[in-house]
Amino acid sequence: MGGDQVVAAGEAARIVAVEAVLYRVPLAEALVDAGHGLHTHFELVTCRIVCADGVEGVGYTYTGGTGGGAIRALLREDIAPLLKGADAHDVEALAARMRATLHYLGVGGICGFAIAAADIALWDIRCKRLGKPLWQVAGGTDPAVRCYRGLIDLGYSDDQLLERVAAEFAAGHTGIKLKVGRPDIATDIRRVRAVRELIGTDRALMADANYSWDAPAAIAFARGVEDMNLAWFEEPVAHDDLDAYASVAAATAIPLASGENLRTPAEFGQAIAHHAIAVLQPDASNIGGITPWLDVARRAAAAGKPVASHGMHELHVSLMAAIPNAATLEIHSFPIDAYTTNPTTVTNGKTAAPNTTGSGVSFNTQRLKPHKIG
Amino acid sequence: MGGDQVVAAGEAARIVAVEAVLYRVPLAEALVDAGHGLHTHFELVTCRIVCADGVEGVGYTYTGGTGGGAIRALLREDIAPLLKGADAHDVEALAARMRATLHYLGVGGICGFAIAAADIALWDIRCKRLGKPLWQVAGGTDPAVRCYRGLIDLGYSDDQLLERVAAEFAAGHTGIKLKVGRPDIATDIRRVRAVRELIGTDRALMADANYSWDAPAAIAFARGVEDMNLAWFEEPVAHDDLDAYASVAAATAIPLASGENLRTPAEFGQAIAHHAIAVLQPDASNIGGITPWLDVARRAAAAGKPVASHGMHELHVSLMAAIPNAATLEIHSFPIDAYTTNPTTVTNGKTAAPNTTGSGVSFNTQRLKPHKIG
Repeated sequence: MGGDQVVAAGEAARIVAVEAVLYRVPLAEALVDAGHGLHTHFELVTCRIVCADGVEGVGYTYTGGTGGGAIRALLREDIAPLLKGADAHDVEALAARMRATLHYLGVGGICGFAIAAADIALWDIRCKRLGKPLWQVAGGTDPAVRCYRGLIDLGYSDDQLLERVAAEFAAGHTGIKLKVGRPDIATDIRRVRAVRELIGTDRALMADANYSWDAPAAIAFARGVEDMNLAWFEEPVAHDDLDAYASVAAATAIPLASGENLRTPAEFGQAIAHHAIAVLQPDASNIGGITPWLDVARRAAAAGKPVASHGMHELHVSLMAAIPNAATLEIHSFPIDAYTTNPTTVTNGKTAAPNTTGSGVSFNTQRLKPHKIG
Repeated sequence: MGGDQVVAAGEAARIVAVEAVLYRVPLAEALVDAGHGLHTHFELVTCRIVCADGVEGVGYTYTGGTGGGAIRALLREDIAPLLKGADAHDVEALAARMRATLHYLGVGGICGFAIAAADIALWDIRCKRLGKPLWQVAGGTDPAVRCYRGLIDLGYSDDQLLERVAAEFAAGHTGIKLKVGRPDIATDIRRVRAVRELIGTDRALMADANYSWDAPAAIAFARGVEDMNLAWFEEPVAHDDLDAYASVAAATAIPLASGENLRTPAEFGQAIAHHAIAVLQPDASNIGGITPWLDVARRAAAAGKPVASHGMHELHVSLMAAIPNAATLEIHSFPIDAYTTNPTTVTNGKTAAPNTTGSGVSFNTQRLKPHKIG
């Protein structure tokens, strides 16, 4: 499969090296959600692409703790040979080429993670060659972005939860998302109501079940928080069960959100077209990078639907600044900001896309070094 | 994620070792299809699982040439730790556990390939512990299975194609599938008509476009071969574009087939429920092994739809012998039979599931050795 190279337009931008490195980064506290269970580490896979003239870009992807070695293997063994010798300007053509070459392995899935790392590196190079920050290259006119804090709090006691919410608001956040999805629905309802009471009626509050309920359970939860002014109810049921989404949507006025487990343009196309899904949550780290993320955002805009990015806030901030239908940026709970040279800061519920040339994300390799697998 | 082990029922069947090996096996001739392009190698990833009492099983999966390293990495780094210490009897529970643990990486995709290799090894162990062949353990009453030859012939000249078809029929086949999907639709129509003329009106003939056409092109092809008595028209359009499938189905009486690019139970559920897809083609090597393959076959049977397996005939022969809705087994063009101890033989369009204890597939490791990557 594959084999023939994209014709190189010029020698300077010819790709001469593609390198992948895996890091396994411990979390300060074990984090629990209803779908994925316990998180003790996250995996970071970086991809460095170097051009003939020395210009280089760095892309990356995450996992919740599994599959990083497979992503690194795809980058080293299948994607690197495909990219070497190609013209780094051909970002969209290379994205399509990677997708087509890996198609039989599943058009989404792990291929989407690996392609993401390479695609982001190519965008980093594109921005550096233009001498502009990503948010401008992607079409933005204002770097300011509304954001909220996404907690992974299913393991917290009620007291811990309320303390943590208060601390997040004291640190500049004005919106927060809680994990739900327990078999004990009454506990989830009680915790949402307690947080709403703590933060007042007008602050943004969301709930995320991580696809752990069936439709009757999700509907029971929604009825118990119907008067809590939730901005959305995320992944109430399995991401690929649109009939169940329709049942939940018919039973509640709370907008439903989905996206972090959609992996292909076709899956997002179905979700965007589906009446039951109100808020789209693409994640560049798992759908193949910036190229498909912007495509999904455009398709959502055409359908009049808002985008609320999932995870990877240090990069998504630049993409959210570039689209007209940005709702709010998730500030994720993985401590990525401890390992970048430009940590995200939040003031009064807003943050801003970095004005540095390139993707705006560069890693502190010294701090990552102890967690390097190779 | 994951972490807690399935409770071991007995010490004897406790899994003590899980090993994965990658082979890169050259093809005697380069094979071309419209979707995946040129094939020069296939990758074989084997998974050996050993129990405390020394009983062991071997499972495996294939790729068309990319991704084998990623599959091996998943098996070694993510699946092996999950299986070690578990009871090998718990095949279905372990299949669900693997799927759940790797969920965020995409419920299908590369995870499906890696899980397949482990699941098949667990079925091999299950059959060996029962002292029975797979076709009986899976519920069959007769090992005989109807089959056809699947060619990968887009690179053949017309003369080569007709010679090859004649040779396959002389070797015992009574049905054959051709590749189509060229931009030049007239050539594909001409070749199908020429093969039909060669083999006569009553032998099984199929055409496979490897998802390379849009609906108008697929309809143009179908109209050109409408009178050729095709058993099915496979992957006329993108596997995830059910609207396009519906358009093609509305324009032709030729049954449409799909499955080799479906990777999850939900995707098969949609395809089974969809009026436009008449023939289901699950492949145990890419949907997670025998456990989900049998589930898909049962669901197809409940909907009154036939199953025609894709690829991996040396294993699927035992599964096709076990289900009531088996249409015909594809004898695939990858030369796997050169590397097993029990090559498939075909007589008058039929083959038979092996009566050996276990999965019925065991590899000739001496012959594979030159192609071992590690």
